[in-house]
Amino acid sequence: MALIFHERVGLDGRRISPFSWRIRYALAHKELQPTVVPTRFADAARILKLSGQRFVPIIEHNEIVVHDSWAIACYLEDRFPESPTLFGCAIGRGSARMVNAWSDSVLARAMRPLVYADFMRCIDPDDRAYFRSSREAQLGMTLEKYSANPTASLASLFDVCAPLERTLSEQPFVAGSAPAYVDYVVFSVFQWARVGSPHDVLADSTKLPAVQAWRARMVTLYDDLGNRFALYPEEST
Amino acid sequence: MALIFHERVGLDGRRISPFSWRIRYALAHKELQPTVVPTRFADAARILKLSGQRFVPIIEHNEIVVHDSWAIACYLEDRFPESPTLFGCAIGRGSARMVNAWSDSVLARAMRPLVYADFMRCIDPDDRAYFRSSREAQLGMTLEKYSANPTASLASLFDVCAPLERTLSEQPFVAGSAPAYVDYVVFSVFQWARVGSPHDVLADSTKLPAVQAWRARMVTLYDDLGNRFALYPEEST
Repeated sequence: MALIFHERVGLDGRRISPFSWRIRYALAHKELQPTVVPTRFADAARILKLSGQRFVPIIEHNEIVVHDSWAIACYLEDRFPESPTLFGCAIGRGSARMVNAWSDSVLARAMRPLVYADFMRCIDPDDRAYFRSSREAQLGMTLEKYSANPTASLASLFDVCAPLERTLSEQPFVAGSAPAYVDYVVFSVFQWARVGSPHDVLADSTKLPAVQAWRARMVTLYDDLGNRFALYPEEST
Repeated sequence: MALIFHERVGLDGRRISPFSWRIRYALAHKELQPTVVPTRFADAARILKLSGQRFVPIIEHNEIVVHDSWAIACYLEDRFPESPTLFGCAIGRGSARMVNAWSDSVLARAMRPLVYADFMRCIDPDDRAYFRSSREAQLGMTLEKYSANPTASLASLFDVCAPLERTLSEQPFVAGSAPAYVDYVVFSVFQWARVGSPHDVLADSTKLPAVQAWRARMVTLYDDLGNRFALYPEEST
């Protein structure tokens, strides 16, 4: 079996993409050990040729090429049914799509202004001009302006995380008693913030204590997977 | 088997509680036909004596009394395993808790200002003074002031529903290809708005089209269950 994982990387091999992080955890969950192809934004031509679009993560499995993290998770689940399950059942998969949509449209949106101003330093120098110009075009403002009010942004993040905090105060993982794909999706956004900014969004222990404890559990899964790669660069980098 | 469902009712038997609605759908899903005990806010003394707290829905099953909609759903799932499943599997149940928390803390909060000013007319006349005083104490303002800006409230609802719209544009139900408890939870908030206000929050067909189509499917389930009871009273009532 040839399984290849094209994974987004940043400065000195840092893992800088929430979408790649959720697939990295999903692969570990399913006990799969792919060949990893580190992929910068600057490698878009290779990715385009491979998949017809510019984004990673991508899974190549024998002759099949799958892009889009949700499609990859479903592919892994369906093609490796003998491995531990990511969704549990059809209802688990359907509901995971809702959690996935919430993570990408609500949680990530709240997280971005807390990370974007710092994020440039954790990505490959060759990618910085592209990252800045593409994101500033989307935002209609500079990254610095977008990130100019961290106090308000943090309050917004706490507000947005209310249902997550409530869930995790009632059970140890989003999926219940053990982690599954819904956990990897939500965690990937927090992990992205750990890598992309020197400021811990969960530093205030009076806010989101259940999320904080869950994040610590998530980091240590699969032999401390959340700490396997360097986090935010030191000042001297 | 003696199964009793203490269900919130309003004016002339209207069903006015999102929490009772999700249990009514869950009972239909599990093909259970309980004896229904209509319960107004004014019946709190009976409920307190029965369950040690004041709220419905409550399920009485033989000698067991279960309150809180989430606990009831879990009870029904566990005690009637031969009936169609509400959660599908452990991961489905865990993830449903997240959807449940989102519905109650985010969706319902966005829906309330669109419903509260009108809501008084759909509840039992004996309950109106209690409803107004308890809700106004929680809100710190009159119901009318809370509902004074429907245009902004509707924009906020559309914003909050972004992950739901995205999910339902990809699959017919929140649970995937068929409805399950996550659908009943989310739908119950929309159904509450159908009963509690003469204004359709989904009247604008350019907004949330997938949610609108899903709501129509949900209403017609179980022999048109969403239309079995009267909706908002006519002006003459």
